[in-house]
Amino acid sequence: MFNDDLIKQVSFIKEIDKLKYIQRRTKLFNSNRHENDAEHSWHLAMMTLVLAGQSNKPIDVLRVLKMVLIHDLVEIDAGDTFIYDTSKSHSNTDEERLAAKRIFGLLPKAQTEEFIAIWEEFEEGITDDAKFARTMDRFEPLLQNTSNNGGTWAEFNVGYDQVYNKKKVINDGSSSIWAYAEQLINDSVEKGILKKQADTDGLK
Amino acid sequence: MFNDDLIKQVSFIKEIDKLKYIQRRTKLFNSNRHENDAEHSWHLAMMTLVLAGQSNKPIDVLRVLKMVLIHDLVEIDAGDTFIYDTSKSHSNTDEERLAAKRIFGLLPKAQTEEFIAIWEEFEEGITDDAKFARTMDRFEPLLQNTSNNGGTWAEFNVGYDQVYNKKKVINDGSSSIWAYAEQLINDSVEKGILKKQADTDGLK
Repeated sequence: MFNDDLIKQVSFIKEIDKLKYIQRRTKLFNSNRHENDAEHSWHLAMMTLVLAGQSNKPIDVLRVLKMVLIHDLVEIDAGDTFIYDTSKSHSNTDEERLAAKRIFGLLPKAQTEEFIAIWEEFEEGITDDAKFARTMDRFEPLLQNTSNNGGTWAEFNVGYDQVYNKKKVINDGSSSIWAYAEQLINDSVEKGILKKQADTDGLK
Repeated sequence: MFNDDLIKQVSFIKEIDKLKYIQRRTKLFNSNRHENDAEHSWHLAMMTLVLAGQSNKPIDVLRVLKMVLIHDLVEIDAGDTFIYDTSKSHSNTDEERLAAKRIFGLLPKAQTEEFIAIWEEFEEGITDDAKFARTMDRFEPLLQNTSNNGGTWAEFNVGYDQVYNKKKVINDGSSSIWAYAEQLINDSVEKGILKKQADTDGLK
């Protein structure tokens, strides 16, 4: 009775509800409550809408929105990997690729292919759209940690060099946002909420 | 040192974090956990991406995404109004208009004006883009309630007629989604998770 596409689309819509249960390490602004992946993805989408004009290069806002809205869906199967965890791969693992196939595979074929391609483009981070999407993804937790007395930096003993090295890719998407971010990082050292030297290598 | 727009945009980005604390009456799929407005807005954005092809009329997907991503931001100040609460106005109250001015007013002027216009267009529900956005907003809780043994219908003694009357606008955005939704509503009566007659008028 109903079109076959709609049945598949509804099953995908139900499945992705699980993103709301995936907890991130970072916490909400000025808060002790962990953020989940759905909230995070919504926030990146809002940031994309308001910050698009800060991009170094012209971007296709709709494509960037697709990237940030779907970028963490693979975590429904593969779980969240903490950015400062040096024991785990952060790029497009086999587990994540399987998750992408299963989850996007619930959709009609053309949409499956479109979403997997968009997700891979985000992961590779080479195109201007992907660079800007990744700028959003690095900038949000920086704002959160500075609002939370160091947040995950303090909690997991992450030092200046690690933060600087992870955040500097912000510059690839937006030099104006990077100027702001760099200042925030330096201010955090001055305020004592980010250690100039970590006691160890941070989280192993 | 930094561009003035970016300072304003960051203050907006911090402010809207509060959307994550606004609890809705509806609960996640197959769950007892309430959904918050940020999660809801993310889900509507995902639904827009996958269901756009089901629209009755051609839509501008980017504009619909803007609508669903921002449509509940006024609730940061004005709070959530339950759709079956007959004692409260559901359209664009003075309180909501003040909230829109304050929250979108944090942005640079051109963006303030753009977002307020987009929000008003969604509220009015007249354009094809707004109709489709509202279809998303009515369809998600229907899917949730049917997954939760009636959910808010059972909890607040809402009957078939009220549900049918609130949901039939889905048809304005998508007749294929409405065919599916109507079937879900009828199935819910058959399954006994939606009463054909409410005992009272429902929530006052």
